Amino acid sequence: MFCNGSMPDVRIVLVGPKFEGNIGAVARSMANFDLEELYLVDPCAVGEEAYRRAKHGSDVLDRAVTVGTMDEAVEDCFLVAGTSGITTKGDRNYTRLPIPMREFAQQVSGYGEKIALVFGREDMGLFQEELNKCDVFIHIPASEKYPVLNLSHAATVVMYEMFQYGHINRRAEPAERKEKEYMLGFFDDLMEAIDYPEHRRADTSVMFRRMMGRSIPTKYEYNTIMGIFGDASKIIKNGKKWE
Amino acid sequence: MFCNGSMPDVRIVLVGPKFEGNIGAVARSMANFDLEELYLVDPCAVGEEAYRRAKHGSDVLDRAVTVGTMDEAVEDCFLVAGTSGITTKGDRNYTRLPIPMREFAQQVSGYGEKIALVFGREDMGLFQEELNKCDVFIHIPASEKYPVLNLSHAATVVMYEMFQYGHINRRAEPAERKEKEYMLGFFDDLMEAIDYPEHRRADTSVMFRRMMGRSIPTKYEYNTIMGIFGDASKIIKNGKKWE
Repeated sequence: MFCNGSMPDVRIVLVGPKFEGNIGAVARSMANFDLEELYLVDPCAVGEEAYRRAKHGSDVLDRAVTVGTMDEAVEDCFLVAGTSGITTKGDRNYTRLPIPMREFAQQVSGYGEKIALVFGREDMGLFQEELNKCDVFIHIPASEKYPVLNLSHAATVVMYEMFQYGHINRRAEPAERKEKEYMLGFFDDLMEAIDYPEHRRADTSVMFRRMMGRSIPTKYEYNTIMGIFGDASKIIKNGKKWE
Repeated sequence: MFCNGSMPDVRIVLVGPKFEGNIGAVARSMANFDLEELYLVDPCAVGEEAYRRAKHGSDVLDRAVTVGTMDEAVEDCFLVAGTSGITTKGDRNYTRLPIPMREFAQQVSGYGEKIALVFGREDMGLFQEELNKCDVFIHIPASEKYPVLNLSHAATVVMYEMFQYGHINRRAEPAERKEKEYMLGFFDDLMEAIDYPEHRRADTSVMFRRMMGRSIPTKYEYNTIMGIFGDASKIIKNGKKWE
């Protein structure tokens, strides 16, 4: 309904996940954002709890590829993006100097090559030698006091951002311009019918147009409001609803 | 590191959560995004598993307020935003016609009043009568095949989005709740005055509430529209503007 574009070619890589519940939760989110490729690097056992959390993402778990090292998980990927809740304020440790997730998602929107999004361990994140293999380090802006998100939460935010830029958002049955203009005309008629001060009409008309602009009504909403304004104007002018 | 402004005043409301793990996971994410107010409506028991998942968000759990109905959870909030993974393709069921989460976050950025972000049950979401009480219905664009995110994942994405826009100041003078309710009341009066079909009034009233919820009018806008609706109703009923 909302999306009709294509997602960049994304692989999710979990390095050393310790809780199978998190693996299952990530699999579910992957299904939520139309992703299929999950690589697990030296993971804990994947069993009942993972499948319970995966819900309709169980296919993703079934097809997950288990490897021994991060190298194996990313070797055929063109861009390797590492993530961590831990950042640095200084710029000397460039391997942990991140770009915000949203900026990254914008940058790779429409990217044609395979991207690996790499998530570290629940407790230790990614080790320095793993970080060194990342082409880019992405970061989820969060609380200064407690910036470390749960693994599946972080993965969900990252996938959500990728999905937003891989797709074009579209509303159901947006009104067309002529419907909008008709309705705004009926609002003007109503102001006239109630003898609204003439010197204020132009401004108030623009004000209402702006309100509707922010609201972005559907065809149905415009028609309903237009009907009410139209009836009110007719009754005031003619004393009855239908002329 | 990236954000140094203030988050809108946000309350998280979980309606009928069935798994304490989800409640704990939401509490953790709240701490990740500097949120403190958690209301639980008729929740499952909150015990060890919730605290295990909450990690450093345990303070949020400690302070969580438990109430019996959604009404009690939102009564002092100015804007009530409902969420659901379930949307509709038609635009007649306007109570489920959503705005994308990002658009909502942009609109309420810097908003001065308290906003309730309401999340439904893991299995059933929000019931119709609960949806009808929401001023705006927000949606996380996701897979057409499997759009329903895990509860704590959905909450995390929503809080993440709010946090990203939290440092941008928005226009001043937002309307107060009573002005909003007055204005919505004047719309109902207008429907009555024009003899709008009775069986459609409740639905159309909710539709208009949602339009205004998406638009987030200022005090001036509410007062202006209220004046026009009020005058129209009075003229229709009494044949003149001022009684």
